Amino acid sequence: MILSNVLAINAGSSSLKFQLIEMPNENVLAKGLVERIGINDSVFTIEYGEEKDRTVKDIPDHEEAVKMLLEKLKASGVIKSLNEIDGIGHRVVHGGEKFSDSVLVTEEIIQEIDEVSELAPLHNPANLTGIRAFKDILPDVPAVAVFDTAFHQTMPEQSYLYSLPYEYYEKYGIRKYGFHGTSHKYVSERAADLMGVPVEQLRLISCHLGNGASIAAIENGESIDTSMGFTPLAGVTMGTRSGNIDPALVPYIMEKTGKSVNEVLQVLNKESGMLALSGFSSDLRDIQEKAENGDERAELALKIFADRIHKFIGSYAARMQGVDAIIFTAGVGENSAEVRQRVLEGLEFMGVYWDPALNNVRGKEAFVNYPHSPVKVIVIPTNEEVMIARDVLRLT
Amino acid sequence: MILSNVLAINAGSSSLKFQLIEMPNENVLAKGLVERIGINDSVFTIEYGEEKDRTVKDIPDHEEAVKMLLEKLKASGVIKSLNEIDGIGHRVVHGGEKFSDSVLVTEEIIQEIDEVSELAPLHNPANLTGIRAFKDILPDVPAVAVFDTAFHQTMPEQSYLYSLPYEYYEKYGIRKYGFHGTSHKYVSERAADLMGVPVEQLRLISCHLGNGASIAAIENGESIDTSMGFTPLAGVTMGTRSGNIDPALVPYIMEKTGKSVNEVLQVLNKESGMLALSGFSSDLRDIQEKAENGDERAELALKIFADRIHKFIGSYAARMQGVDAIIFTAGVGENSAEVRQRVLEGLEFMGVYWDPALNNVRGKEAFVNYPHSPVKVIVIPTNEEVMIARDVLRLT
Repeated sequence: MILSNVLAINAGSSSLKFQLIEMPNENVLAKGLVERIGINDSVFTIEYGEEKDRTVKDIPDHEEAVKMLLEKLKASGVIKSLNEIDGIGHRVVHGGEKFSDSVLVTEEIIQEIDEVSELAPLHNPANLTGIRAFKDILPDVPAVAVFDTAFHQTMPEQSYLYSLPYEYYEKYGIRKYGFHGTSHKYVSERAADLMGVPVEQLRLISCHLGNGASIAAIENGESIDTSMGFTPLAGVTMGTRSGNIDPALVPYIMEKTGKSVNEVLQVLNKESGMLALSGFSSDLRDIQEKAENGDERAELALKIFADRIHKFIGSYAARMQGVDAIIFTAGVGENSAEVRQRVLEGLEFMGVYWDPALNNVRGKEAFVNYPHSPVKVIVIPTNEEVMIARDVLRLT
Repeated sequence: MILSNVLAINAGSSSLKFQLIEMPNENVLAKGLVERIGINDSVFTIEYGEEKDRTVKDIPDHEEAVKMLLEKLKASGVIKSLNEIDGIGHRVVHGGEKFSDSVLVTEEIIQEIDEVSELAPLHNPANLTGIRAFKDILPDVPAVAVFDTAFHQTMPEQSYLYSLPYEYYEKYGIRKYGFHGTSHKYVSERAADLMGVPVEQLRLISCHLGNGASIAAIENGESIDTSMGFTPLAGVTMGTRSGNIDPALVPYIMEKTGKSVNEVLQVLNKESGMLALSGFSSDLRDIQEKAENGDERAELALKIFADRIHKFIGSYAARMQGVDAIIFTAGVGENSAEVRQRVLEGLEFMGVYWDPALNNVRGKEAFVNYPHSPVKVIVIPTNEEVMIARDVLRLT
């Protein structure tokens, strides 16, 4: 077996997350995070084996962050020379309709990702900053772009089209794109493995529940519908995002509060969701704790969060004429037995029989259904980095 | 049995629909419509028994329309004197949180309906015009207001609250209200009668599919969730309304088209839905015809319309831990076997077994499920006027 080392990179506007993964055995050699890039007192954190290292110093830009990362990898002995990095995979949020799969990065591809930036003005330019920084420093190492939207490009027209003037789709690309695709794809393939059934024979509902949350209907290994939309604002209630609301509320809130449309959008993205309902936190752990202590608004927030997910599961089961397994992943989905319980309660009518004892699990792969349940319920920690590394391996 | 005559009135800004119903036997003595009030060449239409009468003349305001209506009722011999009108029921679109039931109209109630007008600026003032016109002309006949929103006031907080800043609810009344309540209530009670089971023991999903369309989850005779929202724009695809979209599309469409927020709202209400998808009509009959002749956009519009309803049925079944009957009502729901078929296909997993032969029915009450189907499927022509007349009888 020929081993190769792949860097999986997720660049934000002032951050850079990384994992160095030995492939194809998917062994994580090092991982870490650079924060506050270009601000001041930037923080560089790296873990390898049992070691942890944290450095605070000014890092002016992503190029410096990349240089520091590579030096740390060498200094720590994880790699001996930069030649040992065989490929780099970059998470890119939006691939528009252009990218239905990961792609080897060329100048032309960078251009095309830039053109899609209009659809994700906060994310794609940041992702590109990461791509360019690595390209400058390691020009000969092949890089692959992996898109959050790509997995959902299999959705049929009936799922991705809004009931809006058709020219809005043709001229402005207004449609449902969906996000968290890399995660939904990972857990759906993993679920098929765990079930011992080819993914092509399964109807899966994947619940990616983190601070952002989305549900996907996956039939024959392909996403056929998902709860997020043109942007990640749509769908279920999230940490600070409203999810779906009556669109007529946008002008109404503007009129009532005197806010501009962009200020209202900011409220829907940053000041809504669990934060707004609970009145004190977007963090589910805080909310669960307060709810247990009798806080009514915290209890309400949990009820609404679970209600919206529960209803999406019903709608996607209807969409696929039934479901073979329901998957829970990401921070909340992997760790909160309580949220899973609230979401699952009352799905017996469609063949979901889950075991409260088995459900009492955190952060590891587990079936939580009774053995006789026609519909399986599976907790699967997501692993977007490994998906990125796999695509690097496949494409280089 | 003491008979009494009740007028059921639905006043729009330039129209007045009426039915004179003999109660409690619910016998329609006369019905009709005044159109183009206050414009010119107003049209007055009345039917009684086998007779039809149509008059075109200028009717400057609702008071004149009411006078003409009363004269026509006398002239036609339907009633001999105005004393034979025992009560008047007025449809009012929005009752806000104030009205969870119909109510006897007093000056104070008129005031309160007026205060709710902010939530329905196009509808409530028009409804009030009708109430005032009758009050001026028949001051001694008791009048009852029947609200489109009232039936949905039983929704729990978890259904009616948006995941928005909580003070938006407290200060501005921003919540889900739901509409078509009188229709959903009528068909749910009728379904219970036809099934021979008390409505208090049933879980019903009511699909009111007309030019406007809404789905309601009705448990124990009470609405617990519905697809329309703060306004009738939300929910499924409709004739010209978009239904749910990613709320972030509002600013995006503004930016792309240069429209103001209110112009965008106008597009979502008047230029979207089936009209936008098909590209030529909001009328389902036209669309079905073109789809049959191979028009792809018409086929797409039908698919999307059915998909959205189908998914709401799944979500509301999940909400109620199953469903005992699915009801189809209003223009499309009563008359389009094709839409019902497209909506119902693939619900077998939740116990819905329907018979294509029985489904081939138009505009009359019918079970369209196979006898062995655990979930019944019932077509029920709606009758909001009879509900209004019943409430007049109950409250006067």
